[in-house]
Amino acid sequence: MTQDWFTRACPAPSSAHRQQAISRQRQLTKPEGALGRLETLAIELAALQGRERPRAARVPVLVFAGDHGIAARGVSAYPAEVTVQMLRNFAAGGAAIAVLARELGLPLHVWDVGSLADAPVPGVACDKPRRGTDDFSVGPAMAPADLDAAFAAAQRAVAAACADGADLLLLGEMGIGNTTAASALAAVLGPLPLEGMVGAGTGLDAPRVARKQQLVAQALALHGAAIDAAAIPGHEALRRVGGLEIAALAAAMIAAAQRGVPVLVDGFIVSAAALAAVRINPSLRPWLLFSHRSAECGHARVLDCLQAAPLLQLDLRLGEGSGAALALPLLRLACALHNDMATFAEAAVAQRSAAP
Amino acid sequence: MTQDWFTRACPAPSSAHRQQAISRQRQLTKPEGALGRLETLAIELAALQGRERPRAARVPVLVFAGDHGIAARGVSAYPAEVTVQMLRNFAAGGAAIAVLARELGLPLHVWDVGSLADAPVPGVACDKPRRGTDDFSVGPAMAPADLDAAFAAAQRAVAAACADGADLLLLGEMGIGNTTAASALAAVLGPLPLEGMVGAGTGLDAPRVARKQQLVAQALALHGAAIDAAAIPGHEALRRVGGLEIAALAAAMIAAAQRGVPVLVDGFIVSAAALAAVRINPSLRPWLLFSHRSAECGHARVLDCLQAAPLLQLDLRLGEGSGAALALPLLRLACALHNDMATFAEAAVAQRSAAP
Repeated sequence: MTQDWFTRACPAPSSAHRQQAISRQRQLTKPEGALGRLETLAIELAALQGRERPRAARVPVLVFAGDHGIAARGVSAYPAEVTVQMLRNFAAGGAAIAVLARELGLPLHVWDVGSLADAPVPGVACDKPRRGTDDFSVGPAMAPADLDAAFAAAQRAVAAACADGADLLLLGEMGIGNTTAASALAAVLGPLPLEGMVGAGTGLDAPRVARKQQLVAQALALHGAAIDAAAIPGHEALRRVGGLEIAALAAAMIAAAQRGVPVLVDGFIVSAAALAAVRINPSLRPWLLFSHRSAECGHARVLDCLQAAPLLQLDLRLGEGSGAALALPLLRLACALHNDMATFAEAAVAQRSAAP
Repeated sequence: MTQDWFTRACPAPSSAHRQQAISRQRQLTKPEGALGRLETLAIELAALQGRERPRAARVPVLVFAGDHGIAARGVSAYPAEVTVQMLRNFAAGGAAIAVLARELGLPLHVWDVGSLADAPVPGVACDKPRRGTDDFSVGPAMAPADLDAAFAAAQRAVAAACADGADLLLLGEMGIGNTTAASALAAVLGPLPLEGMVGAGTGLDAPRVARKQQLVAQALALHGAAIDAAAIPGHEALRRVGGLEIAALAAAMIAAAQRGVPVLVDGFIVSAAALAAVRINPSLRPWLLFSHRSAECGHARVLDCLQAAPLLQLDLRLGEGSGAALALPLLRLACALHNDMATFAEAAVAQRSAAP
């Protein structure tokens, strides 16, 4: 392996800033712990950002898109051309993530790292080694050079998205067929039993879920041993059963964390990419904040593998980064509460009375 | 009873607008149901507001404050003077709800309906029949005239808060000792077994929780039969074991719904008030949206009684309306998605393929 930037350690969060933030939370005019998860969020952001006052103001959204050879096997309720149609919808502002980004004032960067589009889609960065992956139920999804190229594209995408500064990076994806790849990736890396790891995705009926599960089982039988034996199993799993956008997501997390930018993780596919990324580079883990638990059946187990407790559980199953965007206001409000609430001393409010 | 405005029916949500909203959700560029709770939220808001495009732009926050005779029995980790100190902190902008209201652009109305303050607190509306309630473990919390006055104050408060128009009303409270009253109220109205209904509030240790529970048991033994036998048990329960701010919350919900303004319910105390309000006027129920499930132990059971599925679960236990404010961005984003996403036709995106 000539490239190994992605195994270089991410910086450690600042213990000094964490302690300072814990101490500030204790002085704010509320019972200690009364703001629950909002308190721990503010404290972790302070530690990650190495700032006395954490913030989530500048938050670029980076959406990676790619197509999947396995989509030809009928694993999605939608035809493969929807990936490219949705890229146009992102650029035109009509997709869910585009609406959310506009409402929340987030710059939206869409990066085509492997869709089937013949020509670049206006408003979408085109940085792809190839159009779609190969069907991973019969061979590797991509060649080693394709994976290297997807990783390099992710580095460029993160550099572009964070060029104006970033308090946090929000990651999303688009790719018809990518819940199938995410299920395979998570099952092999967990390792997790396949039962309950393959779900309805965009809305398959039960017989098609069963067929999807059979294809994933076939892929695991084909690739499992080679992945286990690889020097970096997370890396080899991305190449064999992943996808170009999933590989880019994993690399983008590592690239962001290496720059000291925390990542807000979206749903099932981004979480499966996170599992691969953490296996490749365990020092990434503290930089990942988890936004929501989706309705896709395998997500809860992937989150368990990552020891992640997401903020929201709203039966979402859209992807695109939409769940992460929906959680962002909680991070912003956690920062505002941490930074702007009065202390007991400032407000002349009595502290708790001693037990009588 | 000379006053019965509060039993007058609230308007029914608009079925026509609900159907229209369901139909629009089906056309948006996402798999049907993929936005989970956000879809049902937008649909319900459209039905309640009788609007094609629901909105949560103009959202006044109304916080009622009152003190409790039972606080003298050591049922709170904080001394009773904290209620008035926090009123000053609300007005000065240093309390959690003040920070959240500022961040979210919400006008904050604080209404003192029964604190111990001798003089009006600057920046806080003073509209109270009396200073604090009586200790309800030995007699009724208040006289019938006090309850009538608290209900009338709530009507004035809702009229003032909604004077400039309101898409939604956000309710909160402040009152040292009010988890004790809320526990008693919910236990008698549920009816719910007392075990697990009396919690740590602002942070009591186990022996003080046990004493608090003993006082509530004593109150229920004293008042339970009279409440059950009353013409309007929810009304009598508010008078005997409630509080002035809790009574005002219940009345404010009814007043808002009668005006066609949906209410975003906060935590344990506001939910207990909601239980009383729904028992007084069942037509209120559809107008209540539930923001979060708090860490206070009885809250989950009160929510079950109301068949309410709140949006967030973040271990909050602050009150003030803070949990409702934290959930508001989800409502706003649900409206934005509903109103601004492109349809399949507009975006020229393929619908789901027929099963092969």
